[in-house]
Amino acid sequence: MDIDTVNRMDRPTFVAMFGGIFEHSPWVAARAYEKRPFSNPKALHAAMVAAVESSARDEQLALLRAHPDLAGKEAREGTMTASSVVEQASAALDRLTPDEMARINDLNQKYRARHGFPFIVAVRHYTKAGILHEFERRLANDTATELGCALQQVFAITGFRIAERFDRVEAIPASDSEHLSV
Amino acid sequence: MDIDTVNRMDRPTFVAMFGGIFEHSPWVAARAYEKRPFSNPKALHAAMVAAVESSARDEQLALLRAHPDLAGKEAREGTMTASSVVEQASAALDRLTPDEMARINDLNQKYRARHGFPFIVAVRHYTKAGILHEFERRLANDTATELGCALQQVFAITGFRIAERFDRVEAIPASDSEHLSV
Repeated sequence: MDIDTVNRMDRPTFVAMFGGIFEHSPWVAARAYEKRPFSNPKALHAAMVAAVESSARDEQLALLRAHPDLAGKEAREGTMTASSVVEQASAALDRLTPDEMARINDLNQKYRARHGFPFIVAVRHYTKAGILHEFERRLANDTATELGCALQQVFAITGFRIAERFDRVEAIPASDSEHLSV
Repeated sequence: MDIDTVNRMDRPTFVAMFGGIFEHSPWVAARAYEKRPFSNPKALHAAMVAAVESSARDEQLALLRAHPDLAGKEAREGTMTASSVVEQASAALDRLTPDEMARINDLNQKYRARHGFPFIVAVRHYTKAGILHEFERRLANDTATELGCALQQVFAITGFRIAERFDRVEAIPASDSEHLSV
């Protein structure tokens, strides 16, 4: 996929293609669509980031709340998005010891109780030890600071997702692309 | 090694043993020595952290400046401490592509020019992508904020080092311990 193809998409196609970049929040893609044309994938991502940054506080909170817990109920029940499954596996969060699982469950509960949204972290930026360290540190933040931190993490996560959406489809011969479920 | 052994050490032995925990800064161990006895390795680390936190700004800056650049001149010339060699290798910083090397060199120079000390990061908490992300982000901080961030990273690095100093020696039979150069 190249950026010219994206710039030619009608709105429903564009939202179908990029509605999942921001977790369960296709409204972000729908608003970014109005900013076409994009000069490259980074510009497309920047338009989506700007849509979130200029959205109402309630919409930002809804976006954060659309994310799964880290190694939480959705992971155990197999109801996470494919992107989240791959991301959490990259930091070995799908292969936790019972002690690590118990510690993360406890942190998930405390974090949600304190801040009102799940702990969100760009797991591809951290090792497992780093994720646990950040979890403790960010749990102690005040919620206004933490809302900003969480959005920055969402922007890092979605930057990876956009880059991969372009890389992945380009890397596959056109004749096979119908088998993709991206 | 156990904490009782540590609590019985005289001052020169203690400083010889722990003087390298804070990079090229044995004064940290020397001051922490006055706070014996320690109930466990974490308490020893906390005493060292407290010694740094209560030190003068100039001493804190000297501590930060005693650290090597990330994948920098000391790494290339083989003059890093053994701890730093192992830490930087853990994030694959000893196996950079020429492009990554050029980007890190550029960031090292900009960071030192702006803040007056090298970029310090607990590499065991981050992936390579995460380190580069943090490097860009922290470069843009104001220097007062960044001094605090850098010290927090030093505390994370030294926490790993203390834990390993205890783990490693305990894991080896007493008859072999004379071959250790810890």
